[in-house]
Order: sequence, then structure tokens, then C-alpha cells
Amino acid sequence: MIKVGIVGGSGYTGGELLRLLSLHPGAEAVCITSRKLEGRPVGDVHTHLRGIYSLKFESPSPAEVAERCDVVFTAVPHGTAMDWVPGLLDEGTKVVDLSADYRLPLEVFEKTYGMKHRAFREGVFGMPELHPEVRGAEFVANPGCYPTGASLAVAPLVGAGFAERVVFDSKSGISGAGIAPSETSHYPNMAENVIAYKLSTHRHRVEIDQELGRLSPEIKVSFTPHVVPAVRGIFTTAHLLVKEELVGDIPDKSEIERIYRDFYRDSPFIRLVPGVPSLGAVRGSNFCDIGFEVDGYGDRIVVVSAIDNLVKGASGQAIQNMNLMTGIAETEGLWFPGGAP
Amino acid sequence: MIKVGIVGGSGYTGGELLRLLSLHPGAEAVCITSRKLEGRPVGDVHTHLRGIYSLKFESPSPAEVAERCDVVFTAVPHGTAMDWVPGLLDEGTKVVDLSADYRLPLEVFEKTYGMKHRAFREGVFGMPELHPEVRGAEFVANPGCYPTGASLAVAPLVGAGFAERVVFDSKSGISGAGIAPSETSHYPNMAENVIAYKLSTHRHRVEIDQELGRLSPEIKVSFTPHVVPAVRGIFTTAHLLVKEELVGDIPDKSEIERIYRDFYRDSPFIRLVPGVPSLGAVRGSNFCDIGFEVDGYGDRIVVVSAIDNLVKGASGQAIQNMNLMTGIAETEGLWFPGGAP
Amino acid sequence: MIKVGIVGGSGYTGGELLRLLSLHPGAEAVCITSRKLEGRPVGDVHTHLRGIYSLKFESPSPAEVAERCDVVFTAVPHGTAMDWVPGLLDEGTKVVDLSADYRLPLEVFEKTYGMKHRAFREGVFGMPELHPEVRGAEFVANPGCYPTGASLAVAPLVGAGFAERVVFDSKSGISGAGIAPSETSHYPNMAENVIAYKLSTHRHRVEIDQELGRLSPEIKVSFTPHVVPAVRGIFTTAHLLVKEELVGDIPDKSEIERIYRDFYRDSPFIRLVPGVPSLGAVRGSNFCDIGFEVDGYGDRIVVVSAIDNLVKGASGQAIQNMNLMTGIAETEGLWFPGGAP
Amino acid sequence: MIKVGIVGGSGYTGGELLRLLSLHPGAEAVCITSRKLEGRPVGDVHTHLRGIYSLKFESPSPAEVAERCDVVFTAVPHGTAMDWVPGLLDEGTKVVDLSADYRLPLEVFEKTYGMKHRAFREGVFGMPELHPEVRGAEFVANPGCYPTGASLAVAPLVGAGFAERVVFDSKSGISGAGIAPSETSHYPNMAENVIAYKLSTHRHRVEIDQELGRLSPEIKVSFTPHVVPAVRGIFTTAHLLVKEELVGDIPDKSEIERIYRDFYRDSPFIRLVPGVPSLGAVRGSNFCDIGFEVDGYGDRIVVVSAIDNLVKGASGQAIQNMNLMTGIAETEGLWFPGGAP
Repeated sequence: MIKVGIVGGSGYTGGELLRLLSLHPGAEAVCITSRKLEGRPVGDVHTHLRGIYSLKFESPSPAEVAERCDVVFTAVPHGTAMDWVPGLLDEGTKVVDLSADYRLPLEVFEKTYGMKHRAFREGVFGMPELHPEVRGAEFVANPGCYPTGASLAVAPLVGAGFAERVVFDSKSGISGAGIAPSETSHYPNMAENVIAYKLSTHRHRVEIDQELGRLSPEIKVSFTPHVVPAVRGIFTTAHLLVKEELVGDIPDKSEIERIYRDFYRDSPFIRLVPGVPSLGAVRGSNFCDIGFEVDGYGDRIVVVSAIDNLVKGASGQAIQNMNLMTGIAETEGLWFPGGAP
Repeated sequence: MIKVGIVGGSGYTGGELLRLLSLHPGAEAVCITSRKLEGRPVGDVHTHLRGIYSLKFESPSPAEVAERCDVVFTAVPHGTAMDWVPGLLDEGTKVVDLSADYRLPLEVFEKTYGMKHRAFREGVFGMPELHPEVRGAEFVANPGCYPTGASLAVAPLVGAGFAERVVFDSKSGISGAGIAPSETSHYPNMAENVIAYKLSTHRHRVEIDQELGRLSPEIKVSFTPHVVPAVRGIFTTAHLLVKEELVGDIPDKSEIERIYRDFYRDSPFIRLVPGVPSLGAVRGSNFCDIGFEVDGYGDRIVVVSAIDNLVKGASGQAIQNMNLMTGIAETEGLWFPGGAP
Repeated sequence: MIKVGIVGGSGYTGGELLRLLSLHPGAEAVCITSRKLEGRPVGDVHTHLRGIYSLKFESPSPAEVAERCDVVFTAVPHGTAMDWVPGLLDEGTKVVDLSADYRLPLEVFEKTYGMKHRAFREGVFGMPELHPEVRGAEFVANPGCYPTGASLAVAPLVGAGFAERVVFDSKSGISGAGIAPSETSHYPNMAENVIAYKLSTHRHRVEIDQELGRLSPEIKVSFTPHVVPAVRGIFTTAHLLVKEELVGDIPDKSEIERIYRDFYRDSPFIRLVPGVPSLGAVRGSNFCDIGFEVDGYGDRIVVVSAIDNLVKGASGQAIQNMNLMTGIAETEGLWFPGGAP
Repeated sequence: MIKVGIVGGSGYTGGELLRLLSLHPGAEAVCITSRKLEGRPVGDVHTHLRGIYSLKFESPSPAEVAERCDVVFTAVPHGTAMDWVPGLLDEGTKVVDLSADYRLPLEVFEKTYGMKHRAFREGVFGMPELHPEVRGAEFVANPGCYPTGASLAVAPLVGAGFAERVVFDSKSGISGAGIAPSETSHYPNMAENVIAYKLSTHRHRVEIDQELGRLSPEIKVSFTPHVVPAVRGIFTTAHLLVKEELVGDIPDKSEIERIYRDFYRDSPFIRLVPGVPSLGAVRGSNFCDIGFEVDGYGDRIVVVSAIDNLVKGASGQAIQNMNLMTGIAETEGLWFPGGAP
């Protein structure tokens, strides 16, 4: 039984890690930290977990956490994770960091997040479908939610070299904004609305650049995020614009399907679906559903992906990484469907 | 491994049985029927199940189903279940009927549902918290969703003899109305709205009468159902009116808590919560959360319960019944939290 | 043209007063106050009003407001309105107070709100359907949103003497909780949920007691509020329990209809509808839709009312009061339908 | 007083025309047709209109309608409008057709809609901001909802010649799909979801091509529609890709603002807003709110527009056209704010 620690357990990703671990036959949460909630049962905050867990929030040092745990998930904000990760790694604990602190090279991180990195380490970018080196790794940087939905949607086609540019238009549920109430998450503002923000400057674009750039160095990426009236889910519409010289001469539907199936043949959580994916079909699950259509003008392929931002976009992918890092089956504890309707 | 059949698998309760069985270590769906979907993979309709199940809908006879299954769930409409149940029982298969055909005594059924019963049998009313005789039973009639939320909310207090009358005001998610589109379920009609229906004549009232009447024969029951903009869940507000002679002289909060804890001491799925329950905390789970407040006027106790109508109100309770009927642990395959947020 | 001032214009009722006044041919907003927004255009906060109004928030004294306005709406919190009302009245301005400061007799107010009243005056309770003395009044206390939906639903029947008790189970949109984000209004908490609160202790109960007690001194009132996933609207389910001696001997449907039509014959905003009212049909309008059903047991009448909490439950009723106080037609500027779908 | 007829009044656009006309001081609905609802009061279907209108649905001939009306709105499906329009025009009635039958040149229509046109006439494309010739016209073809939001968003920039291509990613409320229940509009399918459809083949693309092509013949247009959990509204995200030779050399924010203000200086319903528009601010109103951001890479301008699909996207724009056709002020009866929150 893998002993798991969660550093920063008061938010949605912490709660979701506990929910998912309660379904995992080979791992067990033994420690969850929160300075401000120290001593309180996790069910006080994550009321759905009442009766399932008797754990209480603690406020231990990194060394204490490392001592008690085989794997630690750091689910604290960026800028805080760097206070935990090196200490945990140095004690020999495997770490999956869910913050943004280790997803980018040092200089790119510092420029993008406008801060000095106090404790840089090299981690593996934790998207197993694109990074087989997660297997056996000691330290994994779990990707952002938007980059997960975006990169998985088009990686096979970008890798195949058709694309000049991809315009990502992403629609997220509001749980991505966290557990703290805000103007945006105020029900009268969010209900029956669509909210766009950081129309061209969201930091997750840099992660998408990085991942797609590995597959096709010249690719141009645009990214605009939206929030829609939903709690969970990211629905990504990728407008893939074909290279000028290939316009009108791109593969047909069945050929593109073959490209996807080849690319993802060892990726159990990718489902290529007929028609258009839906958030309902992945809600609560670790699946990434993908569908596409070739524009009749022959200059665009529209690819759509659907994930649960808290699962494949965060805590579920983190557990998928844990499975691979510790040598157990990739799908262990994650092989269940979403909760439609 | 218990082999399970689902008769009538095209609707929400059928899909939910499959979802829940995929999480059950001791049972496995081996057969699912639908005349109109015969031959199609279950993932075509229940798209969240793609990749998890390779089952296809079939259209076998009762005898064939019985032959292949240890337990069969009949998830067909009332009036149709009676065409399946006797045939299945006579072959020695255990049956959990999710329709209304066997929840009431013969005459009460015929009067309430305005039809002749073609094949009556005695079943156990499948609410294990009130009917320990589910354990080992051959045939269980799974309760209605509203009666589950309503009866569990007040059974301890009604049993304790305080109540003159209970006015149930229930708020359901729209999934209770089924998978077929209708005027009521049309998004522009349902969103930002509350819909009340059958203000005084809903058939589920008779089930509540039956269950509370067993605990206190003189109890008066009123019941008004509503639909609110939610997919899953039943939130029941029970206005329990105290007998005139006891007004101002009812137990205090801690005494009432004691009554609940005693009554439900062997009921793992009942959670007595501080404050007011919420649908979010039970969504997707088999829990029934209960909270209450004593009116300062001393003449009313307001009890609130929250369940997921498709789980504790239907498919989850059906599996709980299956567990007890087959002698495995009551919580087997059901001991997981809901999916908040 | 009536010159209107709004004291406390940064919240939803202030914004709604402006919206409604923009539709009123005989009145015009000339002044809106907010200390913290002083100098900012109203469209900065109430973005839907951009282009319609060039007003800016001001921070004047009561005397200045009185000087410039014929009628003033005080839309500040309870406890603050009392700092404005006497000063305005003493300058000869008509006042409609939307707070709770003047709805109840002095002692009842002080007990209910747990505070000393610093400046009590007698006002008319501003529900014109029950208080014809609003006509020509100088000072009106605008009712609470819940008491409006509740009292209008059952006043005719309570007045007719059938009722022993009314159990009100009210379902409100979240805009009733105001413009400031909170735990309750956080979208992931509110969406797909029902939230009950103050199960037996909400202060609005006292207003309902007062209004129904005028019609039938012995009536017993219970009241439990809920919030449902909707921005606007209050859907009130009134379970009217018939006096024991009348059980089984109550008027039939058409007789009850006659009672309602008689009672409300001079009330243009009351619509007695066939079937069950819906929030969609009143959204954005000043109508109160009412429907009912007689329970087959002869001991209960279920009455349902639907209002828009920000219009008939607040700002619309305030303007209806203004019309009557200033001698113009009751429906002036308010005779438009809601915005369905 | 302009006498108005509505042909095809059972749907959402018919109901919305009635709602808007009830607010119009210079026009009055005198006739509304529906074959299947003949004889029934409009309030039976459009329940929000109860008490406001005593009109009943009729089933008259085009000649009878023309006789009684100065202006007729045809709000029937495409393919049916062509049975009405010529008859009405030939009787000298002004017509605003809300169907797709007259928005495109004959051959383009026939190709796009896959049908023979039985009665073609030349109409003015009824988007007054781009078509000043609406003023005084006899026959206007009211634009589609998506093309309205899309064309207004970028017309000034496309006209200014920066754009190589515009990728439109539109998010609509479900009321655009009409009053009839469907799989898509089924609440459990729509709530908490995003539904993309016709990823590259929606017919409205042809209208956008037409309108933007008038401003810049070489412009490339891509269009993908989505439905989000909202009743009303279209939120259009326009990813405007700059011509290669201009990359890095495009106007700055204030210059772009100037371009918009110039272009729309005579367009009262266009509001250029600071930040990002929101559906809430336009809900129920005829405004089109527009905001934008220049991508830091200098190769993209992201423009966002928000309209109410039933008002500016259909019935409101139709009344705006009527005003201009009949020589009254463009804003008459339409100068009111949306209904936030």
C-alpha cells in the first residue's frame, strides 16, 4: 500500500485527491496538511468526505511528511510549492507537484510568473501521453488544466506536421478558479453567462507552446480561455490552421483517425469518440475525449477535447503519474466512468 | 463474482447501475436488455461508459436472463416490470425491481396506479434502514426516490411518537423525470426556474404513508414535489408538526440527535450532519445526509435530507439491497464519497 | 416629472430601481448615492445601464437629497436607513424605505433585529394589495421579498377563515443575498444544489405573522426559506392546513377561484393562473402569479406564488408604492411583461 | 400608431416580438398567426404575456394580414417564409422577414439551404449598422443571430484592412434552438456542459462571409458554434489574425478604439466597453457590447461581442429595422437596459 501525503489540502485539488484515493486499492492518504485548518477533520471542509475519512488536517514540516509518505502531492499555490519540493525530494520521497513551479525551464518560469525561483529542480512534465519518461520518475510537475486539454487535443496532428497555427478557444468550469468566492464565481455573475479573461495573456499558453513546440518547433499557438456556467470540465475547441502549401490537400477523416489511434495506442485514458465530445461524459473521470471535423474549405481541422479539469486536468492526472512513478498499472484506481447524467 | 442482469437498460437508472457496478469488486454486469437498442454497445447511449464496458444491449427472454444471472435488476416502467418479475423469480434468480409494481399491497397498487396487476408477488420493501428483512430476501421492491428521502428524514422522530403530521416539501433534480426530452426538461423552461407539479396527488405519497404508518399509524402525511434546476438530487424539507399536547414540551437538540443516532446505529449510509445537508455532498454517492432544527415556537421540527435520486433514490439503493440479499457486506462497492464540487 | 433619489445605489435593488425608472414615463432618477463609489458613473457597477444613464454616484446629505427630489428610495441595509429617513421626511420629501427598519412596530423591530431603533416613525406597510392606505401616503415601508410572495399567496384564504396554519416553504433566487460574493453564492456551491438556511428563525416570518394576523388573529405561521440555482425569483409553496372542524368541508376549486378574484379585483399585478405559476413568467416584471390545488384529503390547500424578488419583491413594488403615493396610475411604468424565456 | 402583424407567433421570436412591442410607444401588435394554435390566447403559450395582451392566434391569409397591418414580421421557418413574403409585399405592406429565405443571393441561398427558392425577391440585409439602406426600405431580411454577433464584432477592423482571417468561436444560449424540446435542450444534457455542433459547416458562416466580404473581399472566415448552459445570449470570440506583412506593426489599443468609435458613431446600440463584455449586461436588451485585446505577439486581435440572441440577434433588430423603415427614431421602443443581474 503506497502511503500518500497531500501538502495543501484545503482546496478543490486536495479534496479531489482524497476522493480519488478513496477509490484506489493500492494507495492510501495518510497525511494532509493545512496550516489554517490544523486539527480539523477533512470532512468539515470537504463535506462529501464525511464518514469516508477520519483524517485531520495537520501542519507538519517537510521532513515529517517525507518520513511518513512514499509519495507526496504538493497542492499549494505557485510560489509556495518551491518551499516544499526540495525538502521532500531530498528525503527520498517521490513528489508530484500540482503547482506551476516546475513545469517550465527556470528562465521561462521566472519570466512568465514574474518571480525569482528560490529552489529550482528538474522535473518530468507529467502528461504521460506525451512524456513516457514519467515511468519511474522521482519528481513530476503536473501540467496545468488548460494545457492538458489543449495539448492532448492536437498533439498527433501537430506531430504529423500539418499545422501552421492552432487557435485554442477553451471553455472551463468555474471550479478551476478555486474554492474561494470571488466576483467571477458569484452565482449571479456566472449563471447564464460566459466570461472571457486574459484574452491573449494567460500563462498556460507558455506550457502549450512548450509541449507543441517539442512536436513541431515552428508551430504558432494562440490561446483564449473562457469560463462557462459549469462547475467541472474544460471543453477545448482547437482551430488547427493548415500550412498554406497543404491547403486542400490534407488527410481525410479516416486517415486522421488512424493518426490519432496510432499516436494514442498506449494511452488508455484517451477516447477518440464519434461526433463531438461532451463534458458530461468525462465528468468525475480521468478520461480525455477527443473528436474532430475537417473544414470543407480544406484549410482547417477543428478538434474538440473534453476533460474534467479537477481530474485529468489536475488530481486524476497526478494519480496517473503516481501510478507510473511507483511501477503500478497506469489505470489503477482510475478506471471508472464519469457520472453522467 | 455475482453475475448481474439489467432489464431495461436504456434509461438513467440502467446507466447508473452500470456505473455503480463498474466500481463493485464482487459483482459484474453480464447482460443488459433493451428491445429498441438491441445490438448496440451501451456506450452509444451512455457515452460516459465508453471504454469501460464492451457490453451490448440484448433482447432475451426472462428465462434466458435468469439462466445467465444471479441477480436481476428490473429497470423498466411500472406496468412492464410485472411482465418480467414472476418469470425471473420462478427460475430462482434474485430480483430487485426498481419499478413501482411491487412496492404496495395489491389493492393499494391497483387504486394508486389505476391499473390491474397481472402478476402480483410479495416483495420486501427495499429500504434496508427500515426493513432489515431485506437481508437474504429473494425479491425486493426498490422504493421510489421521493419516499426514500422523505421516510429516512423523519422515521426516527415519527417512530418516537412526537408527530401529528408531516408536510413534505421535496425538491428534485430533473433526472428523476427520465432520459426522454419533455416540456419540463427543456432547458429554457427548467433553468432559473422552480416547477411544482401534482401539488397534492403524487403517487409517491402512498409509499410514504405506508412507511411512516408502520411507525405511527395515526400520522398524517402531506407531500408536494418540485423540480429545481439540478440534474441529480432530492432535497426534502420535512415540516414535522408536533402533537398538540406536546407543543412546547419536545426533546431538545441533543436528545433528538440521540434518537437519530440510536435509530440509525446500524445504517452506514445515513450521515447526521451538523447544520443543513447539501446535494453537493451526496452527489454520485449512496449517502443520505440529514440535519434538523427545532422551531423556537416548540410546535415544529424542520428536518432536511439530501440524497442523490439516481443512487440512494434508485440504483445505489438497489445495489445495497443486492449486497444484503446475497450475503455480502452492505457497503461493498458503494463505500465512496460523492463528487463535490 | 417626478424627481427621484436613490439612497444606497450600489446593490441590486439600487440597480433595479434605475432599470425600472428608465422605463417609467413619469419619473426620473436625478440622484443616486454611494459613499464608496462617489464620483463613478453608475454604469461602472451596473454595467447593463451603460449608455442609458449618465448619472454618477454622489455622497450628499439627507437635506441635499431632499432638496432635489420629490420621492426618495432608501435602499441601504437595516440599521442604516434610520439615519436617513427622518431627515428626508422632515424636509417634506416622500420616502419609500426598502430596508427592514420601518416594517414592524417599534418593540417588534427591536426584538427581531436585536438592536435599538434610533429614529422610529410610523410608516405604511407598502404592499398595496393589502394596504390601500398606501395611496397618498408620505412614508411607506416596503415589505420584505419573502413576506410579499407569502402574504399575497394566501391572504384571500386566510381572510376567509379556513386556515388553522400555513406552512410556507419558499425557494428564492440567490440575488436576494445581495451583490457581494459569499460562500453561499459561490457558483460551485450554489449550482445544482438547494440550500436551506434559518430553517425556523428567519426574520421575515415576523412580517408574515403581522400581515396574516391582521386577517385572522389566530393563524399559525411556519416559514422555511431555501435558495435554489436561480438568480431572480421567489417561488412560495404555501401548505395551508384547514381548521379541524372544516376538514372535508372546504370550498371547491371554482369557489376558491371566486374568493381570489374578489379579493384581488382591484389589484392589477396579481394574476391567478390555471395550473402552477412559474418564475419564468414573472422574471423582470412586477406580477405576482398565483395557482392552487385542493388536497384530495380535504385538509390542505396548496397555494403557489411566483414573483421576481427584485421587482415585486423589492424595487418594482417600491415604484408601485411611489405611483400610489404621488397620485399617478398604479401601473404607470410597470405595465410590461417578464422576459421569458 | 404603426399596426403590426406577426406571422408565425408560436415560437420564441414571436413571443419576443410581442414582449418588445408592448414596450413600444409607436407600434402595436394587431394580429398574430399560428395555424395550430388558432383561437387560443397568446398568454396560453407565452405565459409571461398574460394580462398584457388579449390577442388570440389567428390563421388568416397573407392578403388579410396585409390589409390590417402596416408592417409584418414573418417569424416562420426558412422555406415557409417564401410562401408569405411576396403576397404581403404585393399588397403594399412593409415586411421584415426573420427567416433565412432572403438573406442571401438566390444561388447562394439555394446552394446553402439545399432547396429551390419558390419566390425570390431582393431584400435589404437588415443589420442597420452595416446597411444604412434599411432606412425607408420596403423589405428587409433580418440577419441570423450568429452573423449579427460576429459581423458587428469585427466589421471596423476588417474594413480597416488588417485581417487575413477571422476565426469565430461563438457560444450561444439554447433558446436559439427554439421552443421545441430536443436531445440538446434536455436539461440533463445541457446543464454543466458545452455542446459544439456543425464544427465547420453551420449555414450562418455564409452570411458572415457575405457581410465581411463586402468590407474586405479577400478575408478568410472560419466559424464554429457552441451552445452553453444559458437561455439567452450569444458570446462571440473573434480571433482576428493579422496579415503577415502587418505582424508586429498593428495599431495600438487607443487607435483601435478610435477605429471602432468612428465606424459606429451613428450606431446607438453598439457599446464599446472597457474590459470584456458579458451576456448579463445585454440580456433582454438590443445592445451589442464589444471589447478587445491586442495579442502581445502582434499577430492577433481578440475581439469579443455580447448580444441577446432573441433581441439584437432576432426580434429587437427586427423592430430596429421597422423603426428605420417607417421613418421613426431608430431607438424608439428599444431604448432600455438589459435585466442584470
